[in-house]
Amino acid sequence: MDADTARRRLAGARVGRLATVTPQGQPHIVPCCFALEGNRIYSAVDAKPKSTLALRRLDNIGAHPEVTLLVDHYDEDWSELWWVRVDGTALVSESGPRRTVALEALAAKYRQYRVSAPPGPVISVAITRWRSWP
Amino acid sequence: MDADTARRRLAGARVGRLATVTPQGQPHIVPCCFALEGNRIYSAVDAKPKSTLALRRLDNIGAHPEVTLLVDHYDEDWSELWWVRVDGTALVSESGPRRTVALEALAAKYRQYRVSAPPGPVISVAITRWRSWP
Repeated sequence: MDADTARRRLAGARVGRLATVTPQGQPHIVPCCFALEGNRIYSAVDAKPKSTLALRRLDNIGAHPEVTLLVDHYDEDWSELWWVRVDGTALVSESGPRRTVALEALAAKYRQYRVSAPPGPVISVAITRWRSWP
Repeated sequence: MDADTARRRLAGARVGRLATVTPQGQPHIVPCCFALEGNRIYSAVDAKPKSTLALRRLDNIGAHPEVTLLVDHYDEDWSELWWVRVDGTALVSESGPRRTVALEALAAKYRQYRVSAPPGPVISVAITRWRSWP
């Protein structure tokens, strides 16, 4: 897969899966909506900010800022399978200009966020590596 | 989501995403076909056994046997979203009865594996925790 195709597929995917590492060193994974803009991935924490679900992901990033996001396509014809993965360094923004930029990118991609902006923090990932298959 | 629904959704999903931790402590994630049988998840390494892609996943499990597998459903109606996640301890089998059991479970679920059995090692995950949402 060439770099343009990988970028187009990542940008267009409606859902990705974000993997992080817990403070104890165990893998963690959640599905998430996200937007790609330049060299960054933005994602909002949809769960209520104080909820266990939200805190786990944010705690993980606090302990281990290296994260990875996967998008993939499944088809019963296995010759049609593909995936794109980006590794990067994540930062959590509770407020401020970075959160505003992230919310704008997310609202541009998702009608659902234009109807109702996510109230919680956002995760920004500075991409350090692209991988794709095939 | 009740436990029966979570089990049914996990068992029926055609693709999951497996997250592992690299020897250096970074998160790694791949899409994978898998079968649920009893308290175990089985997955074959479809890539050629000596390939970099296969080795990475197997190396990660060698260093950190704790893994997590996610299945999720995306819908533009966000009230329809759900996910099921299982954490567990993974073991790689290059041959022997455990690999045979795994290949049988995978062949029972996937016609593609009945046509062509995967040649490489299998990953067995003993599930230690179920999580689901909502």
